[in-house]
Amino acid sequence: MALTVDQITTAVHTYIEAVGAGDPDKLGALFAEDAVQEDPVGNVNNGRDAIVAFFGNIKDVKKEATLKSLRVAGDVAVFEFSMITHAGDQKFLLEPIDVMRFDENGLIKSVVAVWSQDDLKVV
Amino acid sequence: MALTVDQITTAVHTYIEAVGAGDPDKLGALFAEDAVQEDPVGNVNNGRDAIVAFFGNIKDVKKEATLKSLRVAGDVAVFEFSMITHAGDQKFLLEPIDVMRFDENGLIKSVVAVWSQDDLKVV
Repeated sequence: MALTVDQITTAVHTYIEAVGAGDPDKLGALFAEDAVQEDPVGNVNNGRDAIVAFFGNIKDVKKEATLKSLRVAGDVAVFEFSMITHAGDQKFLLEPIDVMRFDENGLIKSVVAVWSQDDLKVV
Repeated sequence: MALTVDQITTAVHTYIEAVGAGDPDKLGALFAEDAVQEDPVGNVNNGRDAIVAFFGNIKDVKKEATLKSLRVAGDVAVFEFSMITHAGDQKFLLEPIDVMRFDENGLIKSVVAVWSQDDLKVV
């Protein structure tokens, strides 16, 4: 059965919270087994294990993630969020636009995170 | 060779102008032969001929299209635009968020237009 707008909205909020918390296994559990993650554009991870490894690489970086805008249509969400990362005394701001498609179980089937190094700002 | 941000920006502006003008063949020429169009989410047209037919169905609707925001990363553009359509004395506003991927020739390889009937407003 198709997901409702409310279900997808909740799933996006859960994802943003999990990105901020940074636990790779909790993040991996939000994805379908055969999910495809492209983050950023051009950097593709195939399947949940590769996605957990991707989040594992950045798990020790202190992060704050906040949802800025969200559009839902059918099984697709497009949302912009701000992510502040801390590296020593420096803070960096990145505002990815993610395009996320969900399966009928509410798991993430695919995500494309649209950002490049040019979007990274020192704050 | 990879497209530059400027080339993709120009291609998006060309697309928005063509949507406003509404000529199906000119619109079709912006797409790769084997392009996939999903507009809106869930309504898939495979290949240039199907895409030209899609635009043919709405070619007599008077439209104004204006780009609102644009993010480019790699070969992907995400943009929001406003489209006002005229139907008799009524005007409708729709603001799709399009996710567009380009091939190395600058042609549209895929587009997903993220909007639903709930986004259509009488103005």
